[in-house]
Amino acid sequence: MVKLLVMYNQPTDPSAFDEHYIATHAPLAKKMPGLRSFTVSDGLINTPEGQSPYHSIAELTFDSVADLQAAVASPEGKAAVADFANFAGAGVTVLMYDTRDA
Amino acid sequence: MVKLLVMYNQPTDPSAFDEHYIATHAPLAKKMPGLRSFTVSDGLINTPEGQSPYHSIAELTFDSVADLQAAVASPEGKAAVADFANFAGAGVTVLMYDTRDA
Repeated sequence: MVKLLVMYNQPTDPSAFDEHYIATHAPLAKKMPGLRSFTVSDGLINTPEGQSPYHSIAELTFDSVADLQAAVASPEGKAAVADFANFAGAGVTVLMYDTRDA
Repeated sequence: MVKLLVMYNQPTDPSAFDEHYIATHAPLAKKMPGLRSFTVSDGLINTPEGQSPYHSIAELTFDSVADLQAAVASPEGKAAVADFANFAGAGVTVLMYDTRDA
């Protein structure tokens, strides 16, 4: 399974972030072709030392690297990426990788 | 589903890291009570701008926050954490969070 991990830094206005994410960004991301699953963090993201620098982490899965690349390059993927400018000004880390059972 | 995300910075000797991870660390982590799934990145971890600072990302899942906390506090969990010193000197980020469908 290929993963697209999207890690959002703590925003200055978490409520505005969450509202935009739920009402606008998630619906945009869900339109990407080939998307197999889409989960987001629920509540605080902690580390062993306390709260993390991340406000939210989304995980989107695809069947293959080719499917992920096609999704990101699609009009729907470009719209989702363009939407970062509307709510993720605090910074976002996007990671893409294949996985295997450990 | 509750996730334990373990993100390893690029090691100076990737081959030695991988050997230790497969032969020693993963078997230690698998002994943690309550572990539901354990996947690791397979190959490079990329960003839209190129290769990421991470060499490897592991994702371990548990049924609840209580189960995750019990796993990390268990002798098996402590042994796995103590083993970081043997291969993860380049740095490791540990993130713990609950998830929901987006």
